[in-house]
Amino acid sequence: MPGMTEHDPTARAYAVRLDREDPLASFRERFVIDDPELVYLDGNSLGRLPLATRDRIERLTAQWGSELAAAWDSWLDAPARVGDALAEAALGARPGEAIACDSTTVNLFKLASAALELAPPDVRAIVTDAGNFPTDRYVLDGLARARGLELRLIEEDPIDGPQPADIEDACRAGDVALVSLSQVAYRSGALADVEAINRAAAPARVLWDLSHSAGAVPVELERRGVELAVGCTYKYLNAGPGAPAYLYAREALQPQLDNPIQGWFGQREQFEMGRAYDPVPGVRRFLGGTPPIAGLLAVEEGVRITGEAGIVALYAKSQALTGLIVELHDAWLAPLGFELGSPREAERRGGHVSVRHPDAWPITRALIERAKVIPDFRGPDSIRLGPAPLYTRFTDVHDALDRLRSLVEDGAHREVDASRRAVT
Amino acid sequence: MPGMTEHDPTARAYAVRLDREDPLASFRERFVIDDPELVYLDGNSLGRLPLATRDRIERLTAQWGSELAAAWDSWLDAPARVGDALAEAALGARPGEAIACDSTTVNLFKLASAALELAPPDVRAIVTDAGNFPTDRYVLDGLARARGLELRLIEEDPIDGPQPADIEDACRAGDVALVSLSQVAYRSGALADVEAINRAAAPARVLWDLSHSAGAVPVELERRGVELAVGCTYKYLNAGPGAPAYLYAREALQPQLDNPIQGWFGQREQFEMGRAYDPVPGVRRFLGGTPPIAGLLAVEEGVRITGEAGIVALYAKSQALTGLIVELHDAWLAPLGFELGSPREAERRGGHVSVRHPDAWPITRALIERAKVIPDFRGPDSIRLGPAPLYTRFTDVHDALDRLRSLVEDGAHREVDASRRAVT
Repeated sequence: MPGMTEHDPTARAYAVRLDREDPLASFRERFVIDDPELVYLDGNSLGRLPLATRDRIERLTAQWGSELAAAWDSWLDAPARVGDALAEAALGARPGEAIACDSTTVNLFKLASAALELAPPDVRAIVTDAGNFPTDRYVLDGLARARGLELRLIEEDPIDGPQPADIEDACRAGDVALVSLSQVAYRSGALADVEAINRAAAPARVLWDLSHSAGAVPVELERRGVELAVGCTYKYLNAGPGAPAYLYAREALQPQLDNPIQGWFGQREQFEMGRAYDPVPGVRRFLGGTPPIAGLLAVEEGVRITGEAGIVALYAKSQALTGLIVELHDAWLAPLGFELGSPREAERRGGHVSVRHPDAWPITRALIERAKVIPDFRGPDSIRLGPAPLYTRFTDVHDALDRLRSLVEDGAHREVDASRRAVT
Repeated sequence: MPGMTEHDPTARAYAVRLDREDPLASFRERFVIDDPELVYLDGNSLGRLPLATRDRIERLTAQWGSELAAAWDSWLDAPARVGDALAEAALGARPGEAIACDSTTVNLFKLASAALELAPPDVRAIVTDAGNFPTDRYVLDGLARARGLELRLIEEDPIDGPQPADIEDACRAGDVALVSLSQVAYRSGALADVEAINRAAAPARVLWDLSHSAGAVPVELERRGVELAVGCTYKYLNAGPGAPAYLYAREALQPQLDNPIQGWFGQREQFEMGRAYDPVPGVRRFLGGTPPIAGLLAVEEGVRITGEAGIVALYAKSQALTGLIVELHDAWLAPLGFELGSPREAERRGGHVSVRHPDAWPITRALIERAKVIPDFRGPDSIRLGPAPLYTRFTDVHDALDRLRSLVEDGAHREVDASRRAVT
């Protein structure tokens, strides 16, 4: 660090100093933090509760109670309004290119279906990577089977994730209808080279899942020429358990895209209850049923905080936080039999770091039960450490890794009941 | 009424007496009612806020804030638990036959797709009625186009809704893959003869939309041999704006049904992140993405109240409430140019009554702005009056119709700004 006479990342003073110099430090105060001892490194699974969200939900409930159905006047445009806010704060997209609705699974289904309709008739395959998030693989598998296509799975490097060369190989025969990948791999945290992969896939379209990237790294859909994307809001965007997801379709492509799940919220002059389906122009045609208002307002609050902090600053802090994890891994964990399960270079990582150990599951249990550290476990052997730049301090990372080290040194993970199933 | 010397439904004393004798009267206290002057007859669009729901959402938010991702242990089974509660309290179905998830639109898409996969290869049409709720028609239209099927629209009687003979006609050629109808028509409130229609459609399967019936009339899916159904929870089940919907699949049919939107919450051993899609047995395979927890808990609270009141008692009161509307319509509104837009016989109606008038829209605006009565409007000429047996009093119905009458007599609807668009 500039100005430090000695670089000792294992010293707590080092982390204290980074916290002191952190321009985002005050954002931690915007979140509910009941237990100051607890180190929460699972914001990449379920983000913390913003104070503003708690208030907003309370106001919404009051509004439902008093204004009743008349409140729909103010709720109707929530999916588009929240989509625009997401586009600006987290996606690097333009107004009218994103919309908040449904789950990531349903949104992936809708956009993948729409993209497949545009593919030439002689295509034969959908491409994804074998290590992609399960729901992505399942959705694509269902679409492939329904259409008689092959689901072509890339066996990517487990740490580095799918590379442009992998995509080029998979698309070489020119028979690919669609490529769908995650920008950040849920297990290793590898950050994909979006532009190079889009080029390698062409002319096949690429549909990106931003669930593990939006809010942690700059997504920059516009600048990178991304055509199609989906993502969730309950991780780095802090919108709460099962909050609505979003989808993005580049403006130029929108007129060609048909929503396979035609619903009344995507209908022109919706309340005229007209006789034939006639979708609204633009991304709103991907709305279907009545939108979940409480969830949408929670997304709006979460996104607002991300926008205020700024994705560039968040990314810089995220890289510094994960960089500290890597350094402490090397110093403390590697000698205990751990291996790094994530790319070592900051520019090739998203917001989380996986450390691998044969006893990963009992170690995870012991961390939670005895050390007040919450990571998450991804079988068979990965402990994911997901610092969230909005509320995780450098001292949190230091303390978590310190507790992890001493727990394994003491063999505490051999004393916990590890029969409990992993759930998240 | 037994024991009354005189039957004068236009007397307020008559309504007062019905309220006094109402065994469900105390349920009104379970809801937030800010303004005692307001008569809310739009519970068939958005039900009122239960006090218990307000508390439950507050507890959920607190749980998210303090337990963080560990709370998933208690959230994971919410879709199935709430589905079972719905099945028992409102659907007349067995445990394991219903699940709460997604929107009505998405659920209709999933079940209709699954049913179409089971149809013989020579089918040519999907049947619904031209007056069915827009989103139902749009979903079916999309499915029909994607599969090269005809969407065959029954031009039903606008008051009585589709009849068994209509369905028989539409299915006569034996080329129908699927029939999809609403049990209660959203506009006229006509109650369909479910069993006779199922017989008339056979061998085509029938998929029922219960959005306007569940919570107001006995649905009795099990007893009636219904195979497939969907519905929403924000009307008579009082779960809030855009709360999750549900779907029902008869147990015997479940093993044959495939979810077209394959997602990780429908996967066996979900958290093993296994390589291939392998759906859980039963109705849970129709889950897709991460479930919306706040919405599901709101459904649970709404359904609990319905279960406590009991659907038989709710239906009896609903019939009495709508019966009073019909009587007051005949006495007060018909002379002012209104026509009844709903079936006259109680056993052929669901929970709401439509009254029709050429100035329906300005009258609706005047009712809301000047008379503290909230109905809803369904173009071109219907005012829907939806009393909710859990919280609407007979005196509410009396007062609303009385205010409606005097407003039209005074011509107050000619003084409001009716340029505002109808939204719900």
